[in-house]
Amino acid sequence: MPLLECVPNISEGRDLAVIDHLATTMAAIPGVQLLDRHSDAVHHRSVFTLTGEPAPLRAAVIALVAATLPHVDLNHHHGAHPRIGAVDVVPFIPLTGATMSDAVLAARATAAAVAARFAIPVFLYEAAASRAERRALQDVRRGQFEGLADKLRRPEWQPDFGPQAPHPTAGAVAIGARHLLVAYNINLATDRLEVATRIARTIRQSSGGLPGVQAIGLALPDRGLVQVSMNLTDLDRTSMAVVFDAVTREAARDGVDVFESEVVGLVPARALVGAAARYLRLSELTARHVLEARLLP
Amino acid sequence: MPLLECVPNISEGRDLAVIDHLATTMAAIPGVQLLDRHSDAVHHRSVFTLTGEPAPLRAAVIALVAATLPHVDLNHHHGAHPRIGAVDVVPFIPLTGATMSDAVLAARATAAAVAARFAIPVFLYEAAASRAERRALQDVRRGQFEGLADKLRRPEWQPDFGPQAPHPTAGAVAIGARHLLVAYNINLATDRLEVATRIARTIRQSSGGLPGVQAIGLALPDRGLVQVSMNLTDLDRTSMAVVFDAVTREAARDGVDVFESEVVGLVPARALVGAAARYLRLSELTARHVLEARLLP
Repeated sequence: MPLLECVPNISEGRDLAVIDHLATTMAAIPGVQLLDRHSDAVHHRSVFTLTGEPAPLRAAVIALVAATLPHVDLNHHHGAHPRIGAVDVVPFIPLTGATMSDAVLAARATAAAVAARFAIPVFLYEAAASRAERRALQDVRRGQFEGLADKLRRPEWQPDFGPQAPHPTAGAVAIGARHLLVAYNINLATDRLEVATRIARTIRQSSGGLPGVQAIGLALPDRGLVQVSMNLTDLDRTSMAVVFDAVTREAARDGVDVFESEVVGLVPARALVGAAARYLRLSELTARHVLEARLLP
Repeated sequence: MPLLECVPNISEGRDLAVIDHLATTMAAIPGVQLLDRHSDAVHHRSVFTLTGEPAPLRAAVIALVAATLPHVDLNHHHGAHPRIGAVDVVPFIPLTGATMSDAVLAARATAAAVAARFAIPVFLYEAAASRAERRALQDVRRGQFEGLADKLRRPEWQPDFGPQAPHPTAGAVAIGARHLLVAYNINLATDRLEVATRIARTIRQSSGGLPGVQAIGLALPDRGLVQVSMNLTDLDRTSMAVVFDAVTREAARDGVDVFESEVVGLVPARALVGAAARYLRLSELTARHVLEARLLP
């Protein structure tokens, strides 16, 4: 059976007791390994990284939805990160020995099961999308939870599975299949949101920027910082180091320094190679030189 | 059965046809995977990285010695790197699921087989050493090929296996067991060997420098550079980034720049984490965040 990664994003990043409960619930499913968890209070969001075969992962997602519903009410959820549901986004990613078809099949089976069991509308996205207009997650999520009832009334936004109205507290779920990506945020030493927004617009692919970069600008008011929040979907063309350098350069145009950066979830070894090689002036280091990457079948 | 890494170092770094032949010979042994090879003409040395279970690795080392003997004569070998044999050093390293005892057993069985089959003296070193004075590879190799006949006449340097005289063209072999290390070289933009030698002495553990750092200074006359050639044996305490910064700082005291650095063979993902995190100002990145490292059993 193919090995997949599954990275559920939920709209709860503050109540550690609830987040622990959700993590424990998923980790208890036989055949599921919880590799990582990451919670962000400002985003009010948590990200779990699971691996396993399709059936155990499907069981873990169903258990996650069941355990989240009593605890998360999007009518009272305010965070920096866009969201459409209590269990917001659930991507399946092919790992070693698996294909994108395996991930698409897992996404569709999970979507059907979640909609049937919990009466939640489910949109399929990216490689699992049922039509071109739903491939981009940002289009599926546009309007967020607050705009979901209106969106579901439009013929072109009928859900792929489930009812044609939002779940009253949990909204909808986006379930998809995609290649491995790195969720990467760069925090800037300023509280001027327009700086982060301008940089995000400059570097993202959809505005003609760097290949495989999705980016938005967010405020982190509690910290007095702003954030360029990104997904890097084509690490071979645009590495973390390239993005870091581009953001540093753009920020300097506004006289702003990069304060720090952070990775959400796990990174493939090859994502580290470019930055390490640059720091160490290693001209010939490639992902082929990373032992663990060579040991995997 | 335990999975081991085996990293034979041979004293031939220039004749690509010979090196290809040796690589092909080892890769053809069932159960052996040749993960990497690295040849250096100045060192006149090649390093092969193999993985497999103990028995196939033993077969690969025996095949390597058989294939090397007709092609390498140390009486005519002049390179920058110290060496005692045609097949110079053969470490066994425990990988995931294996223990140091597994590596020691593999080293001793291989040493006995090589000595018996080829009438070459074999010294066991590091974790496989038969006595404390032989643990350090530099002590085993001191005097090099040219001093080997005298060394073998001394009672305290009787070989662990094989004859009490050097093989006439192949010298001796050091076979050992050790933890994973990173072979890491930093090239300096100067031809003044004394700068590399001073820095090596300053940073190596044996002179009171950084934990887990072995270092020597070498000239690279063809390139007009000098090299601090190192083994890093305790990456958790002294990372590549720490070493790079220390060498950069020491070189600056002589007004010398770091030109580049290089890795010989493979690096574990955790070796890259420190440098990547520094470059990207990632305060919380650890080896636990590297996907491949988490996927291994």
